[in-house]
Amino acid sequence: MKTFIGVDLGGTNIRAAKVDEEGNILQMVKDVSEPDKGAEHVMSKMIELIERIDGYEECEGIGMGIPGPIDTIHGKIIVSTNLPKLVGYPIVEHISKHFNKPTFIDNDVKVATLGEACLGAGKEYPIVYYVTISTGIGGALSIDKKVLSGQNGHAGEIGNICIDRNRNKYNILNVGAVENEASGTAITRKGKEVFGDTIQHAGDVFELARQKDEKALKIVDDMAYDLAMMFSAIAHVCDPHVFVVGGGVMKGKDVFFDKMEKYYRDMIHVGMQPVVFKEAMLEEPGIIGAAMLPMTKIA
Amino acid sequence: MKTFIGVDLGGTNIRAAKVDEEGNILQMVKDVSEPDKGAEHVMSKMIELIERIDGYEECEGIGMGIPGPIDTIHGKIIVSTNLPKLVGYPIVEHISKHFNKPTFIDNDVKVATLGEACLGAGKEYPIVYYVTISTGIGGALSIDKKVLSGQNGHAGEIGNICIDRNRNKYNILNVGAVENEASGTAITRKGKEVFGDTIQHAGDVFELARQKDEKALKIVDDMAYDLAMMFSAIAHVCDPHVFVVGGGVMKGKDVFFDKMEKYYRDMIHVGMQPVVFKEAMLEEPGIIGAAMLPMTKIA
Repeated sequence: MKTFIGVDLGGTNIRAAKVDEEGNILQMVKDVSEPDKGAEHVMSKMIELIERIDGYEECEGIGMGIPGPIDTIHGKIIVSTNLPKLVGYPIVEHISKHFNKPTFIDNDVKVATLGEACLGAGKEYPIVYYVTISTGIGGALSIDKKVLSGQNGHAGEIGNICIDRNRNKYNILNVGAVENEASGTAITRKGKEVFGDTIQHAGDVFELARQKDEKALKIVDDMAYDLAMMFSAIAHVCDPHVFVVGGGVMKGKDVFFDKMEKYYRDMIHVGMQPVVFKEAMLEEPGIIGAAMLPMTKIA
Repeated sequence: MKTFIGVDLGGTNIRAAKVDEEGNILQMVKDVSEPDKGAEHVMSKMIELIERIDGYEECEGIGMGIPGPIDTIHGKIIVSTNLPKLVGYPIVEHISKHFNKPTFIDNDVKVATLGEACLGAGKEYPIVYYVTISTGIGGALSIDKKVLSGQNGHAGEIGNICIDRNRNKYNILNVGAVENEASGTAITRKGKEVFGDTIQHAGDVFELARQKDEKALKIVDDMAYDLAMMFSAIAHVCDPHVFVVGGGVMKGKDVFFDKMEKYYRDMIHVGMQPVVFKEAMLEEPGIIGAAMLPMTKIA
């Protein structure tokens, strides 16, 4: 069976894995990324890491997933909060020259989308919209196992969709941006506003909702409606077969997901009801999806 | 040069044209569609009409554009207000058997999108989002000259996107659906509410705005903001290179379009600013786009 190398490069760690065609991780290695030491340093780290993988020479190609908007054509990072010294650096050129293998790069959410579309919860469907609800909210559209990057690498920046124009402005995002109203960060903020510092993270709000606390249930109900508005906007643009939903906030799915889906189904046309929701199923969608980049591009 | 037949089938008329590869209409013929007389009758009308085109035998294929959601795989209408007796009828099978030519069908907005993406205002761009603002509001996404239908033929039903949850419910569409707030029908309704029956259509409101009437300017400003919200939601889903905007309401573009674009650019990320707006340029996007169906599928 053919194997591929997937790399997950973040602001703290680099991880690399050998992945087979069925998405099995055969070996995984990890190191700190130390991006403050510059692009060349990170590239050396990445090369050393890949060379620690048994049989890396026989792998068919290399794929990398990196946070933020990526120029997939020129193989560069466009903008980055965590890896500012790598912006504009020819990452793909550097790595492909060193290993003499087909090498590809994309945004971390987009490679996760590719992983879920090819091998995960979306694998039986032609049109997959992947949504991750975590610290932030992001997503991507996959059509026939190809992920849409958009002109500027911003396709899927759905966290900035306004779901209610009568909210507060918190940051650079739009007033009423769904990320500021229904992400893990948002639920934590709303929980603190009501319950004070006993709330450490969104899970604490969900736990209170499980205990039928009225105020926690209100936060969760608002969140469910706000998310439904976002899913509805996406569906009217691209009418997917499936929404694959992942991210840490899904740990609270028992308290918000059914409500969300009920609100959502009232917001779409009768003819769009066949759409289904599936929970993301890959344990490591980012690294498996990164390994899928060469698999889907050179197959 | 190769030629193709494009058919525009509506509730009142059928039109058929011979179109060349550059989108020139070489001949156009027209008849009433009489859909109340049943599917077989409409099929006979369509066949007669096509056979009136000089040299129809030499055309490479046939494409049809029809309002409402279309099952492009099985060549049938899914739902139709104007052509209810044709729902479920095997239109493509019937026509392709008769003429022994490759035959395709899609929704009228989607074929217009294809026309604009292949030969019109979007032809130089890979990712085109076409929006028509007319009696209603609809659109479609084209990627590399292929139009996304969606699972249920509903991709691009953007008129149902909620742009403000604090509006009235008017019909089957969502509260705050942009079609109920910024279409030609909506502007006419709002004009009548303020100015009474002196307002016959949206153009009358635009004319008052040109004369600097404060109340008309308020209607137009709200419309511009509401449309910007819709364009922003679409852009965050698919980050297109270009929005191609058509439809009768664009006759008032001088009063609302620059405002709309200014609001819109404040609602998207800095990195998404390269997107451009172009006015739809084909005189007959529906019929030319229909003819592009066989051109793009059998080329």
